[in-house]
This record gives sequence, structure tokens and C-alpha cells, in this order.
Amino acid sequence: MQFKGKDIISIEDFSKQEITHILDVAQSMEPLAHKSSDMLKGKILATLFYEPSTRTRLSFESAMLKLGGGNIGFADAEMTSVKKGENLADTVRVVENYADIIALRHDLEGSARLAAEYSNVPIINAGTGAEEHPTQALTDLYTIRKEKGKIDNLKVGILGDLRYGRTVHSLAYALGFYNIELYLVSPDTLRMRKDVLQTIKGKISVTEDATLETIVPQIDVLYVTRIQKERFPDAAEYANVKGAYKIDQQILKTAKKDLIVMHPLPRVDEIAPEVDNTPQAKYFQQVKNGVMVRMALLALVLGTVK
Amino acid sequence: MQFKGKDIISIEDFSKQEITHILDVAQSMEPLAHKSSDMLKGKILATLFYEPSTRTRLSFESAMLKLGGGNIGFADAEMTSVKKGENLADTVRVVENYADIIALRHDLEGSARLAAEYSNVPIINAGTGAEEHPTQALTDLYTIRKEKGKIDNLKVGILGDLRYGRTVHSLAYALGFYNIELYLVSPDTLRMRKDVLQTIKGKISVTEDATLETIVPQIDVLYVTRIQKERFPDAAEYANVKGAYKIDQQILKTAKKDLIVMHPLPRVDEIAPEVDNTPQAKYFQQVKNGVMVRMALLALVLGTVK
Amino acid sequence: MQFKGKDIISIEDFSKQEITHILDVAQSMEPLAHKSSDMLKGKILATLFYEPSTRTRLSFESAMLKLGGGNIGFADAEMTSVKKGENLADTVRVVENYADIIALRHDLEGSARLAAEYSNVPIINAGTGAEEHPTQALTDLYTIRKEKGKIDNLKVGILGDLRYGRTVHSLAYALGFYNIELYLVSPDTLRMRKDVLQTIKGKISVTEDATLETIVPQIDVLYVTRIQKERFPDAAEYANVKGAYKIDQQILKTAKKDLIVMHPLPRVDEIAPEVDNTPQAKYFQQVKNGVMVRMALLALVLGTVK
Repeated sequence: MQFKGKDIISIEDFSKQEITHILDVAQSMEPLAHKSSDMLKGKILATLFYEPSTRTRLSFESAMLKLGGGNIGFADAEMTSVKKGENLADTVRVVENYADIIALRHDLEGSARLAAEYSNVPIINAGTGAEEHPTQALTDLYTIRKEKGKIDNLKVGILGDLRYGRTVHSLAYALGFYNIELYLVSPDTLRMRKDVLQTIKGKISVTEDATLETIVPQIDVLYVTRIQKERFPDAAEYANVKGAYKIDQQILKTAKKDLIVMHPLPRVDEIAPEVDNTPQAKYFQQVKNGVMVRMALLALVLGTVK
Repeated sequence: MQFKGKDIISIEDFSKQEITHILDVAQSMEPLAHKSSDMLKGKILATLFYEPSTRTRLSFESAMLKLGGGNIGFADAEMTSVKKGENLADTVRVVENYADIIALRHDLEGSARLAAEYSNVPIINAGTGAEEHPTQALTDLYTIRKEKGKIDNLKVGILGDLRYGRTVHSLAYALGFYNIELYLVSPDTLRMRKDVLQTIKGKISVTEDATLETIVPQIDVLYVTRIQKERFPDAAEYANVKGAYKIDQQILKTAKKDLIVMHPLPRVDEIAPEVDNTPQAKYFQQVKNGVMVRMALLALVLGTVK
Repeated sequence: MQFKGKDIISIEDFSKQEITHILDVAQSMEPLAHKSSDMLKGKILATLFYEPSTRTRLSFESAMLKLGGGNIGFADAEMTSVKKGENLADTVRVVENYADIIALRHDLEGSARLAAEYSNVPIINAGTGAEEHPTQALTDLYTIRKEKGKIDNLKVGILGDLRYGRTVHSLAYALGFYNIELYLVSPDTLRMRKDVLQTIKGKISVTEDATLETIVPQIDVLYVTRIQKERFPDAAEYANVKGAYKIDQQILKTAKKDLIVMHPLPRVDEIAPEVDNTPQAKYFQQVKNGVMVRMALLALVLGTVK
């Protein structure tokens, strides 16, 4: 397995064996989470964020600092040469001279792949368009494996916006590697994209149009997502579906005791605060796991871990 | 005295003995100001600034770098998940996974206290609402002690916006620990908040409605503040009071030779540039002292200094 | 030669010998570009960017990190105390307490010089007004010397916006030190500023109003610049001249084989993408060279290299 110099664009680019290796390396990072390492000393990560994101940007930067590296970048395309009319290919060919690795967040699908074609340094897709968010999907797999001890032979429900949510697309592809029963729950207008369904249907059992009430008693993992206002072309359409679901203690009473509730965050109303302190709630642990996964990817791609 | 893991929310949370200890540690940081230290190597500070502030944010980041630590964060809430509807409690529970300590600047009173309730890592209040700015107050005390050799038995005048200025509220609480004669000078509409007055009146001598001309000849410390346009609900009200006071060489002629003039900065017109090069002017020294105080707080709260 | 503590404001402040020394030190930085150095460990660079610029800001920050130093700063004046009415002199006297050196980008001519007058730490001009961008000019000289083995006895064509482009003004001053034949090509309304012409005309051979077709076959260096929309007071004037020139493979067919094509970037349409992969294209190498030059300046001014 060779990760050094590799771009991390889509979860679909990896084999199951490679994913397992990434998760293993992430696990090996846990002891480094709270102490200083010089593993990436002298290395520089550029975080190029054309869309705002506290979470993902700070997660990458934290991972880099924990391994002794440094960060440069921007958090907002408004402050950049984009304003002067520069295209992404040029920006990447400039920034590769400043950094050893680039994490790219962009609103256009395909932008990470394009950047990787032009860049001499590795590109990590930190979320592009409505399409893919592979480091989040790896974080989700890592969380499931850590909490349940395995990923195979689980029943997983995914709830919310399955159409615009890039997180669930990457997660669905990732789950396609495992022996999973997948249940999809969403408003009619936010059903899972056809191309994603097509890819995974041959691999795993997928039940569309599931209802929350039916699946909660039998599933092992409930993955909740926010209805993302900013992805809706139409405000009225958003108004129709926001608040369509809410996970609270009431519904969790019907669940298996060891159900875990996950969420890529940020959340708005779809998980009640009363759930936060239940043993089922794992969404803040996911955040910590995300740092481990990004530490693993940085170390693998920069060649300091094999 | 136990600072490790403690939140720094309000100057009122500390005893006089604890304040003295912080000032002593700040003094011990002076030799580190211009050379490299590894005291906080591997530690990460997150600066979460929901309101813009060059000064305070850069001061914290400089303090962290001088001690060998690293920084992540945001300088503007516009670039964050706040836009996506996330609340502060969730943001804090996310960021605690990225950083060892959080400095929070927020426009809402009580926000630092709320953040501390939810956070597993220490929160330092970097200015919240019109209420408190404890690291500035500690900087002010440090400056007075450094310049006058003591804080007790001094006559202190505070001038300007005593209603909306969070700096003077924290300073007033801090001076309440000492044997001080306090003189307050402000436009009628910008008099010191009643709750602050009530707290300090039992402890120290306070003269309200003082005039600049009367107090300047007798005071030891003149603390000038900006009339903060951005805190006024009403533009007309601001127009009435801006430029109400101006400290210049003319008025300083009537002062004691060892009067010191302080200002939390930024200033606009309230101190004439001609004052900058007088021996009385200490406002730029305050800036340097602020770095020492923040280095002390970071080292104390992270447990590398006791 | 004494660089320690010196401000880097204008290329005109340097002797030819000093420029040669900077280029030599830049060359000595090449081996450090991809490995860790502790040369500036514990030092802090403040990047104060009142105008947006990905390129220059990230270049400085990368240079500082590669030498083991740390960065603080802002990328956008909107997020700063400027909003509160603070002037540049005060900002500089504040920030000198946070950093060992300041890189300043500002829209007003003369601002870097003003900052240097007030600052106790060295100021590096990172681009001010339409006037000067000395670190870019040094990068351009370094690139020419590296690619051609010399700077003297070359024919150099400069193309594009010679009126508003600060890069070409600094470059013209810099070329004034060498034995150069300079050819200027621009739309009538964007001819080289008179004061710049006057300064260099006594030193080197300058041909104004050259046409691209005539000069391309004979020159050794073609320096292309963007018509900068944001510098035009008048949108109609911009519309008249944008797209006035385009360098493509067609025109390069008439050039000498070892012509080099340079551009300070970002570009829009003035160089066709088909040129990017020709051996003549050196504009992305310029970016890398810029990091070397900035590493050299930081090390020289901070006194770790003589």
C-alpha cells in the first residue's frame, strides 16, 4: 500500500484494505492527541477554503499542529486572488510552492479532482460541492468501528437530507465496502441521489423510504444530518422540509440499548439537546475522531507513516 | 492556589491574592518576550472571535507563539458555522477537541460563562458584551504596578465611556481589591453602570461626576477610554458625546509630574498625538504588558507554571 | 553591509551591491525550501494585509514557517481596529509588541514608509498603493538571474498595465541598476508613469511605445502583467483596454528559443494556458523564487544571516 504523495479525492478511489489501513493509522494517533509530536516538523499544510467551515478547517489545522507541522491558508474566497479573476488551476500551481500538502474546500463538484490534476503536491478533498467529503466519511467509519468494534453486520439508518448532503454521499460509498443493511429516511424532495444509490445498491442491502418509527427499534447506528438551508435553490422548498425530523429521548426509548447516534455537525434542531448526555450520543466523539483521521491522512500522504 | 484547568471569566472570580500571583507570573514572563521558549510546545490555543479585534486576538496569539504553542481559530463569525445556525454550546464542544484552551470574544454578555459550562477545556474571556474584559483589567493592574511600584494608595481617574465600555467595568471591579480613590468623568449619558458602582462602592472611595480640570492636578493614574461608536444603539446619541474630552499637553501641564496616562486602545481623538512622546504616556507599554499577562494566564491555566 | 533591523520599503533604497547580496542569500535558501530549519525559531512575523492578497501573504507566511518562525496577522482590514477608527501609526506601535517583524500590504502610497517611521521593529513593504512592491521586484531579478545566468546585457520587454501596476514600477527601478535594454508595451492610457521613467531613463536604454510584434523576436525576457481592474477609477476605461494583449504559442513562434516569459500573477487572459507547458513559461517558478527571496529578507533583517 502506497499513500505517500497520493491525493485523497473520493472514498471511491480506495480499496477496503486501504480504508482499513487508514483507520488503523488513525487509531495509532490517539496517544498523540494530547501530547507534542515532531512527526511533521517543517511541513506546511495549506487550507484553501472557498466555502466557510469552522469545523473542517480547524480540524485539519489542529491535526497538523499536533504532528508538529505548520499551517497557512484562507478561510474565505473573498479575501483571495479569486476576486482578481484567478482560476483554481493557477491558484493550486501557486500554492504548491508554499506548502507540502493542500486541503481544499470548494463549492463546485469536481474541483478537488481538477486541483489534483494540476498540483505537484497532494490534494486532500475537504468537501466539494454536494458530492463528496471523504475525510468525514472516514471519520464516520472510524467512529462506528471504535464504538461497535466492527463495521460489518450492522444495521445503519441515515436520516435527513440525502440529496444535497455531501457527507451522506461519501458515507454511503464508504458503507458499500461492508456487509451493511442500510435504511434511508428523508423527505420526498430530499431522497438519496440516484447515482449514489446505483453505485451502492449492487453491494449492500438498501431500504429506501424507511420511516423513523419502524427502523429505530432495530438499527445499530442512526446517522442524522442537518437539512442544509444553504444548499437549497428555493427558500420555499426549504421551509417545507425543515424540522421534518427530530431525535429526542422519546424516540430513543424504542431503540436498542447500544444504538449509537451520529451527526456530522453542525446541527440545528434535528437532535434535541436532551440527547447530548445520553450514552447513545456520539456526535461530539466524532469530532475528536475526525482529528485522528486527519492526522493519519497527513502522516500517510506526507510519507512519515506507511 | 490552583490555576490549572481554571476558566478566566470575570475579574470578580479571583481573590486579591490570586490576582497578585497572576501579576507576579506575568512579571516572570518579561525575559521570555524576545526569546524562544518551549514551555507550551505541542499545546494549541483556539481564538474564537465573534467580534473583530486585532489587538486582543494578536496579543493572545503572540503570547502563545512566544511560549512555543500553536494557534487556530477564526477572526470573524461570518466565516463560521454560526451562519449555519450552530449555537455557542455546540461550537465549544466541537472546538475543545481541536485545542487545549479557548479564548472567546463575543458580543453577548454571559457568553464566556456559558461556554465554560459546556467546555472540557479552559475558557479565557477575551471580551464579552459590554460587561467584562478580564485580561485587559489584569493588564491595566500590571501596568499600574509596574509604573507606580504599587496599586494601593493611588488616586485613579477614569475618563470617557463608562456605560458601554467593558474594559472599565472589569477595571473598576479589579480596583475594588485595592485601597484606591476612584474619580469617574463621563458625559451624562455615559455614566458608570449602576450594578458596577454598587459592587465597588462598598470597597473603595468613588467620586462620580468629577470634572477633568479638578482631578488632573491630584490623580496618579488617568485612564482614558474611547467613546465606542459601535456600542451606541443611536447614532444621534453618539454624535452628542464624541469628542467630549481630549487629553493634550495643555491639560497635562496641570498634572503631577509622575501622572501616568493609560488607554486600552484603539484611540480616536481622545488623546492628542502630541502626548505620545511624553513620559506620562503609557498606553503603548500597556500593549506589551498585555502579552506578558496573557503568557502568564496561558501558562497558569495549562498547568506549566504554578 | 548591514541588513539587521533595516526596513525594506523601496527597491530604490538599495545599492546594486546590496541587491546582489540579497539574491545570493536567496540562492542559499534553496536547500531549505523542502526541509525544516530552526533559523528563526521563536521569531514572529505579523502580516498586516489591508488589501486582499493570497499570493504575497501566503508566500511570506510560508517563508517564515520554513525558517522555523511563527505567524500572526490579518488578511482583511474589515476585521480590524481600522473599523474602530484607528490610524496606521497606532496600529504599528501596537503590533510591534506582538511581532519581531511586520509585512505590510496597504492601498495607500507611502504607507510602508510611514509605518517604518513609527515602528521599532522592521517593516517589509508587501505592496503599497500603485507605487512599489519591492519583494516582487527582487523575486523578478532573482528569476532572471537564475534562468539567464546574469541580469546585465539583456533585452527586456514589459507588457501590459505600466501605469497602475506597482510590480512594474519596482521592477523598472530594479532593472535601472543593470545594463539593460528596456522595451515598454502598453495601451496608450496605461503608459509607464512619468516619474518612474525619469528615474530610469538616465541609467538604461528605454524604448517606449514598442509593439509586441517588433520586440518579441529580439528580447530575452518578456514580462507580462495583468490589466488590473481594481486599480481603474473608471470602468469604461478598463473595458477599453482589457484583452489588449494575449501571449500565445503563435506569437512565441517568432521569439528566440531561450526567451523567458514572466508574470507576477494572478493572470486572467493575457497569457494563454497553452503557454504554461512551454519551456519559456517561468511564471510558476517565479512563485517558488519569491519564497526564497522572502526567506532571505526575513533572515537578513532579523539578523540571523549577514
